[in-house]
Amino acid sequence: MSARERGVIARTAVLGRGVLDADEPVLTGDDLGLIRGDGCFDSTRVVTDAEGVARADHLVEHLDRLAASAAALEIDSPSRSHWAGLIDELLASWHTPGEAVLKVVLTRGREWDPGAPTAIATLVDAASLARVRGASASVTSCEPGTRAADPSDAADRSDASDPGEPWSARRGIKIATLSKGHASDAYLDAPWLLGGVKTLSYVVNVAAQREARRRGADDVLFTTTDGYCLDGPTSGLIVIDGDRLRTTPSGPTGLLASVTVARAVEAARDDGMDARYELIPVGDLLCSDGVWLVSSGRGAAPVTDVDGVPIAMHPALMERISRYAGFALNG
Amino acid sequence: MSARERGVIARTAVLGRGVLDADEPVLTGDDLGLIRGDGCFDSTRVVTDAEGVARADHLVEHLDRLAASAAALEIDSPSRSHWAGLIDELLASWHTPGEAVLKVVLTRGREWDPGAPTAIATLVDAASLARVRGASASVTSCEPGTRAADPSDAADRSDASDPGEPWSARRGIKIATLSKGHASDAYLDAPWLLGGVKTLSYVVNVAAQREARRRGADDVLFTTTDGYCLDGPTSGLIVIDGDRLRTTPSGPTGLLASVTVARAVEAARDDGMDARYELIPVGDLLCSDGVWLVSSGRGAAPVTDVDGVPIAMHPALMERISRYAGFALNG
Repeated sequence: MSARERGVIARTAVLGRGVLDADEPVLTGDDLGLIRGDGCFDSTRVVTDAEGVARADHLVEHLDRLAASAAALEIDSPSRSHWAGLIDELLASWHTPGEAVLKVVLTRGREWDPGAPTAIATLVDAASLARVRGASASVTSCEPGTRAADPSDAADRSDASDPGEPWSARRGIKIATLSKGHASDAYLDAPWLLGGVKTLSYVVNVAAQREARRRGADDVLFTTTDGYCLDGPTSGLIVIDGDRLRTTPSGPTGLLASVTVARAVEAARDDGMDARYELIPVGDLLCSDGVWLVSSGRGAAPVTDVDGVPIAMHPALMERISRYAGFALNG
Repeated sequence: MSARERGVIARTAVLGRGVLDADEPVLTGDDLGLIRGDGCFDSTRVVTDAEGVARADHLVEHLDRLAASAAALEIDSPSRSHWAGLIDELLASWHTPGEAVLKVVLTRGREWDPGAPTAIATLVDAASLARVRGASASVTSCEPGTRAADPSDAADRSDASDPGEPWSARRGIKIATLSKGHASDAYLDAPWLLGGVKTLSYVVNVAAQREARRRGADDVLFTTTDGYCLDGPTSGLIVIDGDRLRTTPSGPTGLLASVTVARAVEAARDDGMDARYELIPVGDLLCSDGVWLVSSGRGAAPVTDVDGVPIAMHPALMERISRYAGFALNG
């Protein structure tokens, strides 16, 4: 089969080659991004309006984070203008109304022809991807700049490994807590562990999501061996108690700084809340006023169940946190 | 540039497509091996004699380990006969005398066209790869089944990220100990952490090797937060005291079971030594009779220096451990 034959609408752009068909091979077998997971990526939502004009959400922040990841890996990234040119070319070729997922991928390049990094950008229509993954048929309709939290939320599942379960971000998600195997300060003074770097080496995140599904949950919250919350495999954590908003700090925890969490923290502060980056004991989840996993793909998904134990979730808070995260609920 | 223009002799074989030129792209931009490091690999040495007949070392053990890795990742690997056919085809196309590195790579397949894993095998001439990496010019000459431990040891560096330092396995290597950030029992009852699985998500191993070079060392020995030795980024550990041979156990440590270590343990037992899989305190390195990092690529590399402190290394032991590891010293 091929993506085209399956009806998946997608394109790949390669720096130096331009925009290509989704089924065109672009990487050689010795690319270090493949054989070592040695590279980084970033991802955001693209919304295309009825006139066929495509626009990427928060592209500057995502390219900033890609540049930081590349610097941590000592990969000589193409310049911002090269990336912007490649993405512009990709977006200009795109006229499928609705939501799509933009991914930018940077690898250290080839083992057999060293020196030049590999830089690609991919764009895939969320609805057609959800369909091929066996998700339910109905598709979210979105106005640019807004987003419906819907069971058929497709961009959502674009970050999961073997998705297709029709789980509803609106009704909430069940999470399993899984140990990441390290303490909350494991990444202190250990830059080689690449804490905070969005690398291509994501296989543990994918395996953890499989484990969660095995346990009847929709997603994962990683925890430390000393009893604190980390984040999800492809999402950040937000916990609310009264007028306090908490999220796990990056740094010693190894956490990736989430663009969506940062937006939410800022919006919450503007709204007069006491928003903090601090370690959150796992036990606090059960007695909080609300828990969310947030990402640039799916927005804010309220957590209704932690390891089989139902937790509180107030409808008024759901609207508020979605708004903080930049995803107005209008579904 | 291209591998061909650089004079690197290499080939790629793809299941379903056959043997291809080294510069032919074989992976699409949505391959989960690339964008998630979601896959596994294995690697071994190939020796081609003067008549141009190529033979892979311990292929059965390496394909066994690949199958175990695939099972842990729940990737539906091609059958053993499919792999054997692909590798046979690759080896039959290969007539470059000397050493080469065979790599087999299995990914979960495409995101946009799910269902079929990606299976490739690559073969690269060690001497030409070392040359393009800027290694010293002289090249080891080897009889099939034997191996010279030599500064220009090329297959060696095939496992490193950004190699090229002319370091001598014969004179010995300097190592830096770097914390892996977890305790020695972190992988107990945590299969989602993928302990013992040779995944494509190797970016921390590569970053640790960069850190070692920054510290003036040639390679890394990972350690646990509770003070034990683990292994190297691409090698296993052997420590000798009197007639006792120790190596770190897999299981709760998360260690990958090394084919070369297993051979050495077996050979040492046959030789009447007390060979054990047990946790080794980091402090023991400084007062042992000898320390080695071993791998199927480079054989047994004696360690002469740990974090800047010289350690003992007896020439008689060097010959013995190389022999145990299946690499007779004849350089």
